[in-house]
Amino acid sequence: VGRLLGIDIGGTKVAWALADRSGSVEARGRRPLDPSGDGEQDLDRIVADVEGLLERAGVATDTIDAIGVSAPSPQDPDAGLVLGPPNLPGWAQVAVRARLGAAFGRPVFLENDANAAALAEWRFGAGRGRSDLVYLTMSTGVGAGIIAGGRLVQGRAGGAGEVGHAPVEHPGEPCACGLRGCLEAYVGGAAWTKRLRRTAPATGRVAALAGGSQAITPVHVVAAAQEGDAFACAELERFNEYLARALVGLVFTLAPEVIVLGTIASAAGERLCFAPLREKVRQRAWERLARDLEIVPAALGEQTADLAGVCVALHGLAGDGGGAS
Amino acid sequence: VGRLLGIDIGGTKVAWALADRSGSVEARGRRPLDPSGDGEQDLDRIVADVEGLLERAGVATDTIDAIGVSAPSPQDPDAGLVLGPPNLPGWAQVAVRARLGAAFGRPVFLENDANAAALAEWRFGAGRGRSDLVYLTMSTGVGAGIIAGGRLVQGRAGGAGEVGHAPVEHPGEPCACGLRGCLEAYVGGAAWTKRLRRTAPATGRVAALAGGSQAITPVHVVAAAQEGDAFACAELERFNEYLARALVGLVFTLAPEVIVLGTIASAAGERLCFAPLREKVRQRAWERLARDLEIVPAALGEQTADLAGVCVALHGLAGDGGGAS
Repeated sequence: VGRLLGIDIGGTKVAWALADRSGSVEARGRRPLDPSGDGEQDLDRIVADVEGLLERAGVATDTIDAIGVSAPSPQDPDAGLVLGPPNLPGWAQVAVRARLGAAFGRPVFLENDANAAALAEWRFGAGRGRSDLVYLTMSTGVGAGIIAGGRLVQGRAGGAGEVGHAPVEHPGEPCACGLRGCLEAYVGGAAWTKRLRRTAPATGRVAALAGGSQAITPVHVVAAAQEGDAFACAELERFNEYLARALVGLVFTLAPEVIVLGTIASAAGERLCFAPLREKVRQRAWERLARDLEIVPAALGEQTADLAGVCVALHGLAGDGGGAS
Repeated sequence: VGRLLGIDIGGTKVAWALADRSGSVEARGRRPLDPSGDGEQDLDRIVADVEGLLERAGVATDTIDAIGVSAPSPQDPDAGLVLGPPNLPGWAQVAVRARLGAAFGRPVFLENDANAAALAEWRFGAGRGRSDLVYLTMSTGVGAGIIAGGRLVQGRAGGAGEVGHAPVEHPGEPCACGLRGCLEAYVGGAAWTKRLRRTAPATGRVAALAGGSQAITPVHVVAAAQEGDAFACAELERFNEYLARALVGLVFTLAPEVIVLGTIASAAGERLCFAPLREKVRQRAWERLARDLEIVPAALGEQTADLAGVCVALHGLAGDGGGAS
């Protein structure tokens, strides 16, 4: 019946869902990931979770067309391996495709979380019906998924989409990755939080909203900027400035129809982020590239966890990446 | 017999060639373009040239699988129009696909010159056998063609690949396009020539090689740098610095296997350009992206004019862009 099974392995939780090709979810589950330190063992537990789901839903594996997995980068999509993301201890070289293929006997496709979320926003979210899309995660770090001509851009060894480390200042501020001037060093949640705790006035509105300088996160800057706090507004202007620099580079390189921005940008919203960002991009990109370009918040929110893996399966079946088990 | 007909419309010349799928050229011709001011009339003359070629070669049009056209940007590849490049007077909205389709009754595919040259370097030049390639023209202006996963990245309305206008400095120097800080404002032949004529010491080696400051071009800087001239070496260092900034952005965005550089970079060669450029990119990109990355000169040279159009036809037939007449 053309079912798709999606598995979303996050840094802190794992989710699984059965859906049809229209994205309609038939059954789902999720739980904290709680890494054991042994990736193979964690994966065995995920297999057991999915087996439980299929049993409860009364679904035979031969009614599943494909399995799609979203997992933190880095990974090797051709080999079907997760290569040891920093926040998943024990997950060095975990053979996700081989293990799931052996368990369920269906084709398995694997993508990193940014690519999987980009596929989900493209199929069922803010980029529906388009051919050329860039999605930026805008979370603790900044990852990207790029759809060009209706296909995911994967690059050599699945390495494409690390737009968070494209330089936006020269040489610029140090990034957690060891380089300087990376987009992520300016707009990544972790880097921004660090900066805010260092620079926000101790008696200012941002610190007050957070209940102390050392508890500040970007959420408090957004809240203070909504009240018109000068420090917070200047911080958002800086955020928009660096983000705009990266978007202009993407616009000239890829000519997307739509740029979809995740977590932090979504939270900042239209007035504090999207309107000023669009204006900056319009001023710095050619009219024929910027005129019809949409810059919009991600639309799926929590649904992403259900649909990311499903969309990886869908894209894999379309013959555009990954491979059979 | 699977022949392909390629037509390369340049700013100053037009070339046409018949080749098979392996790139072996059976017949060719070229002449100065000499624009009449009426694009339709210029196109009629190109049709007559090609008819003459086919007659002399004894080739019937029904042995031709497809026609590929390389023409200066901007253009609308879906509509098959050339939209009035600045250096082709009278070529606003010329319906290249319709005219050639009517004349020869074969499918016609159209790409801008940077995309067409990228396809040629990919199929038959420095990027042979790879899936992910970026080609930069590095001529008067800086254009790019991007191959991702074995397909040309075209973007909305064929607008992708304008890497010459990705920002490399903020706000940076004015570019001829009206923006500031564009890559082309630093490494484009026209912009660099202008700067050299303004800044080169009147009694220095570069001016002497050119026979006067006002005759300086990048060629003279390369020649003087080969002799160790300090001004020329500093200019090449500047060229490499700005080019490296753009390449690092491309590496993080697209994870190419190979970056192919055209005219000026090719002329500067290994010691003055490619070796220092590779070192800069290696210092500023992650090891897993930079390790196996090749940064190499274009390999086809004059052959590009024969093969660019042929490769557009080949790529079009593979179903990856353009459309039937």
